[in-house]
Amino acid sequence: MFVQKIESPGLAHMSWIVGSVSQAAVIDPRRDCEVYVEAATRRGAAITLILETHRNEDLISGAPILAAMTGAKVFHGPNPAKPVQYAETAREGNSFRLGDLEIRVLETPGHTDDSLSFVIVDHETGDAPIGVFTGDALFVGDVGRTDFYPDRPREVAGALYDSLQKLIALGDQAMIFPAHGAGSVCGSGMASRDFSTIGYERLHNPRLQHASREEFIEAKLAEHHVSPPYFRRMEELNTVGGEPMPRSISPTALSVDDFASCADASIVLDVRSTEAFIGAHVPGSLALARKLVSGYAGWLLGYDDDLVMVAESAEQARLACKELGRIGYDRVRGWLATSLSGWATAGRRFETLDAIDAAELDHRLRRPPEDWQLLDVRSTEEVSKGMLPGAKHVYIGELPGRAGELDPERRYTVVCGSGARATLGASVLRRHGIRRVDVFRGAMRHLDTPLTTE
Amino acid sequence: MFVQKIESPGLAHMSWIVGSVSQAAVIDPRRDCEVYVEAATRRGAAITLILETHRNEDLISGAPILAAMTGAKVFHGPNPAKPVQYAETAREGNSFRLGDLEIRVLETPGHTDDSLSFVIVDHETGDAPIGVFTGDALFVGDVGRTDFYPDRPREVAGALYDSLQKLIALGDQAMIFPAHGAGSVCGSGMASRDFSTIGYERLHNPRLQHASREEFIEAKLAEHHVSPPYFRRMEELNTVGGEPMPRSISPTALSVDDFASCADASIVLDVRSTEAFIGAHVPGSLALARKLVSGYAGWLLGYDDDLVMVAESAEQARLACKELGRIGYDRVRGWLATSLSGWATAGRRFETLDAIDAAELDHRLRRPPEDWQLLDVRSTEEVSKGMLPGAKHVYIGELPGRAGELDPERRYTVVCGSGARATLGASVLRRHGIRRVDVFRGAMRHLDTPLTTE
Amino acid sequence: MFVQKIESPGLAHMSWIVGSVSQAAVIDPRRDCEVYVEAATRRGAAITLILETHRNEDLISGAPILAAMTGAKVFHGPNPAKPVQYAETAREGNSFRLGDLEIRVLETPGHTDDSLSFVIVDHETGDAPIGVFTGDALFVGDVGRTDFYPDRPREVAGALYDSLQKLIALGDQAMIFPAHGAGSVCGSGMASRDFSTIGYERLHNPRLQHASREEFIEAKLAEHHVSPPYFRRMEELNTVGGEPMPRSISPTALSVDDFASCADASIVLDVRSTEAFIGAHVPGSLALARKLVSGYAGWLLGYDDDLVMVAESAEQARLACKELGRIGYDRVRGWLATSLSGWATAGRRFETLDAIDAAELDHRLRRPPEDWQLLDVRSTEEVSKGMLPGAKHVYIGELPGRAGELDPERRYTVVCGSGARATLGASVLRRHGIRRVDVFRGAMRHLDTPLTTE
Amino acid sequence: MFVQKIESPGLAHMSWIVGSVSQAAVIDPRRDCEVYVEAATRRGAAITLILETHRNEDLISGAPILAAMTGAKVFHGPNPAKPVQYAETAREGNSFRLGDLEIRVLETPGHTDDSLSFVIVDHETGDAPIGVFTGDALFVGDVGRTDFYPDRPREVAGALYDSLQKLIALGDQAMIFPAHGAGSVCGSGMASRDFSTIGYERLHNPRLQHASREEFIEAKLAEHHVSPPYFRRMEELNTVGGEPMPRSISPTALSVDDFASCADASIVLDVRSTEAFIGAHVPGSLALARKLVSGYAGWLLGYDDDLVMVAESAEQARLACKELGRIGYDRVRGWLATSLSGWATAGRRFETLDAIDAAELDHRLRRPPEDWQLLDVRSTEEVSKGMLPGAKHVYIGELPGRAGELDPERRYTVVCGSGARATLGASVLRRHGIRRVDVFRGAMRHLDTPLTTE
Repeated sequence: MFVQKIESPGLAHMSWIVGSVSQAAVIDPRRDCEVYVEAATRRGAAITLILETHRNEDLISGAPILAAMTGAKVFHGPNPAKPVQYAETAREGNSFRLGDLEIRVLETPGHTDDSLSFVIVDHETGDAPIGVFTGDALFVGDVGRTDFYPDRPREVAGALYDSLQKLIALGDQAMIFPAHGAGSVCGSGMASRDFSTIGYERLHNPRLQHASREEFIEAKLAEHHVSPPYFRRMEELNTVGGEPMPRSISPTALSVDDFASCADASIVLDVRSTEAFIGAHVPGSLALARKLVSGYAGWLLGYDDDLVMVAESAEQARLACKELGRIGYDRVRGWLATSLSGWATAGRRFETLDAIDAAELDHRLRRPPEDWQLLDVRSTEEVSKGMLPGAKHVYIGELPGRAGELDPERRYTVVCGSGARATLGASVLRRHGIRRVDVFRGAMRHLDTPLTTE
Repeated sequence: MFVQKIESPGLAHMSWIVGSVSQAAVIDPRRDCEVYVEAATRRGAAITLILETHRNEDLISGAPILAAMTGAKVFHGPNPAKPVQYAETAREGNSFRLGDLEIRVLETPGHTDDSLSFVIVDHETGDAPIGVFTGDALFVGDVGRTDFYPDRPREVAGALYDSLQKLIALGDQAMIFPAHGAGSVCGSGMASRDFSTIGYERLHNPRLQHASREEFIEAKLAEHHVSPPYFRRMEELNTVGGEPMPRSISPTALSVDDFASCADASIVLDVRSTEAFIGAHVPGSLALARKLVSGYAGWLLGYDDDLVMVAESAEQARLACKELGRIGYDRVRGWLATSLSGWATAGRRFETLDAIDAAELDHRLRRPPEDWQLLDVRSTEEVSKGMLPGAKHVYIGELPGRAGELDPERRYTVVCGSGARATLGASVLRRHGIRRVDVFRGAMRHLDTPLTTE
Repeated sequence: MFVQKIESPGLAHMSWIVGSVSQAAVIDPRRDCEVYVEAATRRGAAITLILETHRNEDLISGAPILAAMTGAKVFHGPNPAKPVQYAETAREGNSFRLGDLEIRVLETPGHTDDSLSFVIVDHETGDAPIGVFTGDALFVGDVGRTDFYPDRPREVAGALYDSLQKLIALGDQAMIFPAHGAGSVCGSGMASRDFSTIGYERLHNPRLQHASREEFIEAKLAEHHVSPPYFRRMEELNTVGGEPMPRSISPTALSVDDFASCADASIVLDVRSTEAFIGAHVPGSLALARKLVSGYAGWLLGYDDDLVMVAESAEQARLACKELGRIGYDRVRGWLATSLSGWATAGRRFETLDAIDAAELDHRLRRPPEDWQLLDVRSTEEVSKGMLPGAKHVYIGELPGRAGELDPERRYTVVCGSGARATLGASVLRRHGIRRVDVFRGAMRHLDTPLTTE
Repeated sequence: MFVQKIESPGLAHMSWIVGSVSQAAVIDPRRDCEVYVEAATRRGAAITLILETHRNEDLISGAPILAAMTGAKVFHGPNPAKPVQYAETAREGNSFRLGDLEIRVLETPGHTDDSLSFVIVDHETGDAPIGVFTGDALFVGDVGRTDFYPDRPREVAGALYDSLQKLIALGDQAMIFPAHGAGSVCGSGMASRDFSTIGYERLHNPRLQHASREEFIEAKLAEHHVSPPYFRRMEELNTVGGEPMPRSISPTALSVDDFASCADASIVLDVRSTEAFIGAHVPGSLALARKLVSGYAGWLLGYDDDLVMVAESAEQARLACKELGRIGYDRVRGWLATSLSGWATAGRRFETLDAIDAAELDHRLRRPPEDWQLLDVRSTEEVSKGMLPGAKHVYIGELPGRAGELDPERRYTVVCGSGARATLGASVLRRHGIRRVDVFRGAMRHLDTPLTTE
């Protein structure tokens, strides 16, 4: 029996392939799903089963695509918001057998109404659960968010509590295989470690330490989560089934002139590092450093926008395109093949930003410059733990829609947890005509100035 | 300016990508054409032009597929047998410019009526031709075959002669970039070296040493070429445009039982090494060792046949599927994931062959066993240089259709140039009920027995 | 915190790299240890600690080599047979800290006197053990062998029992990370699954189900294990520290003539598949199919023997050389670059074997041919569960030394679990002048003939 | 017969492997020479011969290292400055035979006294030269520099002229395989195309168009070349034979604190992109963007300097280490594993630069700011074609030694061909206490301001 994890880094998404001898099942496949076929083939197994732990809202499901490639059947949980057209329904007590491997279905609603967990038993060695695919019910160090049904928050938080008891009842010995790891928007307290057991989570997962069901529900209701607008598109697609990835995700190389003419009718994404953007960038471009693509593209880009890209290398552009494709943004018209160096040597105009370090920010906080405004673009959850005195808070995802609240005549220093989102924020401000903007590259905890909480 | 070769080994096919700065052209792309996009992207160039030197008869053209992926235009020569629906016509004197690179069209008919060559000039350095894509007109050590128009053989051989003079006139300094290398069925005298120049070929290519046009024509008419039946399918597809490769070419892993039930309604291809087939194989399977796939599948398989595969490893199966896919055989239902070892340990019946070495064959030739018949499966061209005394000649490609000529009561030793095709031949005989068959693993030149020519 | 497994397939050896943020520790590194540096670098961590769970007897330890590459310190357990010259001593209660990761030393003797386990705690999330590196104390589905101290077998079996109690006391939630997986000679009952937890093993590991310490000891004493002679060399090397791998393990390509002249003074290893060997092989060669290299080279080869290799491809030869290098066989003078095909077409003599299937073996068992002898080359442990009637048992590892017990005038059919070791056995017999030998390619359980146990 | 190029990008160095059937020769191997063994093995050939076209001054020769790995003999030309201790002498008329391949030695002094060319003949097809390894005698679009013997410049330029006539006499059909491509300091006029023929060069190479030997000599004497100080070290090492590369070139990952303490006693190399350095960098670091490493490390680093590195990724750091290793800089103590982002979020101080575009520079040139000085760091050869009015010229390689010529009170804008070397120059100025410095990111040809030549 084998279990193999297939990660999609930017989304912190984890899909799984599990099998025995000549058959394999895939749990929660992503859109670009050749990888599962290759993995199964290398092990001499055929994919005969595809399981979804719930309707994914943060990425395009590969289930219908993989089904078309392999002939495998897809199973989804009961009670979906809309019927999942490419799947049959699996219910508590159903079980699948692949060689020595048995997969038992557990209904574990809460995160969504249709959430399932899949318990695995290895009949080569014994009948205790050796592991469980927990989807978005239970993570390493956290549990799933329960804010997707705003009209019945207590009910779904309670449902998750009950589901977690079911999982705990599997026994301390069972390993957990969740659908997300640290960095996902599907949970904010996940550990950096990517493996755990029911027993360990029972002992240490903060959300499994609450004294009562009621206390758990209260804690869940107090959470703040963000829901990028692209989630809606994903939910629709994952009901009817999305299209496969384009055959080649390598974006077209554009000369400086071709790029410039494409750029006029497109959004320019700069996926280079934050520092490179600060150093020099194409005017009007968004500072969407590659690590931010999966998390923030869905806030800033519309599905009808044409996109062009500034990248350091073809490989960097290709990886950014892959991440965009996983959440459905396929309209990348090309990338600036000479990178910014060619842009500049062609005599084109570029812009720079200023980055300030902790010493400089402390200095300004002590003696605020005239007309100066701190802008904090972190999430509500982050700022609830403390902000710099005098800072204005607008979450980065909402900045394009709320830039009008800012005074274009003032001078802004944008701050976040490290400077990456701050730089993205600065690029958004520039696009809205706010010219006097710089960014704090650093972490607030190293400032002399203490944070305040209202 | 750059030129990069993309080879398809079994077919000995060479396609090319040529470009300058941000633009690239592809010459004679194959069906699985993501590779061209990747290569161009790595160089920071976009594919803006696709050129065909002629209508390929030995593989599915990737031109329409690559055009759909990139938006590039396709150009094909004038006078095709049927209009090429996905291409515009390029004619002598046309030229294309990509940065410093100029591509000039030369009409070089003979191999086919629509054959073009593409001369490249690098305007960064000078205006002499630096190279020429010669398609199937001129190879390293050989020239194209001229047997595709059986009703006007002299005319097309003469046309090729004239085309070659055009190529020679480009100057000794020009490098040649042909569409095939050693091992292709599109020419039999190619050198193992894969690079050359007009000047070198002028001096040493045997077909450029003839004293006159007439002598050249006579020599061409005396050649023997084989035309596998699959050529017709390729010619049709390359007029209308073939389908892209399946998204994943990894064949489905089959358990012993699943394989056995598939095998009943399928042709079993054994793509392991010749020795492994000799050692033990699934009864009824064809000994199509991977190196033989591209050359002989097109003789032995119909496009409606379902196929299953015996391979040593998933990777070997995948590569064989890729080669089958390049010539249009997509109906591979799976491969025996346990290989022959699992077949045998599952208690399944297998068969073996006997291989004999030079000493044993000499012994038999000196004292022929009773009822014994040598069967030579080499091509007409090969046997024209000499055969073993008493051998019967049936070309391997024609063996399935002519197996009825053989006496099932006799005992056969099959011979070829090395033993690979002989083993394939033996597997064909077995499928036709001839049981007493073994193979000579070796080369005739090492026998004590001299060859005879009628 | 991360844990990554680095496997050495043939040996079924598992080494581990564990770390947190910028520091990493390696557990039980193998000889070719660039892989650990690459893995750590990719994670942005430096290797600062090397831990050995015990003195490895089945492979060359990479600890001193990796220490020289990285500057990391090596720790080894107390009470080694001889002092380990490259290591400091770690004792129960010692602990190491790398960022959030704590590694606690547990003395777990039994398999060897110096056996340690390393418990890991992730202080990012809690203080319960999240996992334990169990070396050769506890495997998935088995425990370590205890036959290395023949003068005090009860004592060491009892010590292992006590060590296992210590491990169980870590709690059901802890994952186990052992030094071997299925296929290792260090334990015979391992599961094919390669992950588990203390809790699962407590429930299902057969060796943790014994009613008492005494019963456990009795069960251990009843086990049969093999100890290839090369173990002694490993034990010596792993006291003083072995040499690094040769810089390039790609063996020299040899022409047919060069191979033939090398072969005279060398042992010829044929690492192609078992079927390929059966089909045709160089006379006198050993049928050491690649999967057998790690397990059987140490029985058949001396450290002063020069070796040459027959392989299907350069890559196959390279991998075989790597596996040989891991157990100290560096004297590979080259490989036959043309493989057997070139050998045969050069007119060289080759030999073949006969393989028989289950039907044929049943037939012979019903009506034994004259002078016929079955030879079973499986291990004592395997034959203790049943043999074919009339079979003689000589373990494959001991066959070279005991071939004199066989009558060269008789006809032998060699059997094992599948046919792989039987073919190796047949090649050994041929080297000892026994010509009339064939192999059973199949599994005894599919025969009509029932097995017998004395 | 095959020829394969092995490139070392930063150095624009090209080594070659040429062979036939089972034997191969390597021309001008670099220090990390496992690559040659792998390439030969893949082709089924053994490396039996190593040839040096001349004593390399710009990289560590891998000849003695590869000889130790393979047992192959090394040959070097006559008349070296000092005897090459690891090589035998090859002279005009010597020839080597590897299967069908013949390699003929041609003495072609000029670039160095000991320069050889190696003519290859493919006896499978004919006896005309099919190609020639021209070392540093003849490049694509240029010829070798002749400034290494300052006491006899005319003599060696004349010798090169004569050598080139020898090469031309090989015939237009011969391909050329030189030791360098565009970007090398061994010649400044090389074409971007990396393949050519004797015939093409005869027609278009500017240095082969001179009317007379005398005119050629005059032209060579008028050239300006740079000789980084590290050349002397290479020349010494390539007489006695350098050490192999370290076994793992992956640099040690350093935490922010470890990096900071290492940095004090080391030179900090920032190998990220030029823009990233401009955006934010560790104070005191050198802006040695990866593309500059091979070309400028040898000017700026001493062989006794300890080095630490700032890189975007482990892979970027590894590649930079490899390039440093090829020219003998092995003292890399580690890299900042968190990159600059981690440095900043740890609260560490960083610095930024200002980059200006063409519009801004034109503006300044029209109205020079007070105390402002343009500093042009291009080579003498480049500035000889024109400089900006008022600019001071100091070649980047000489800037550390001549920084004292600059007035630390003034404000500098550093310019070069694109901005990359300018940024390196700015980082050098900062290290010398000149704080008011910015860089022009762009090319002078796009300025409104015309260049001046004295």
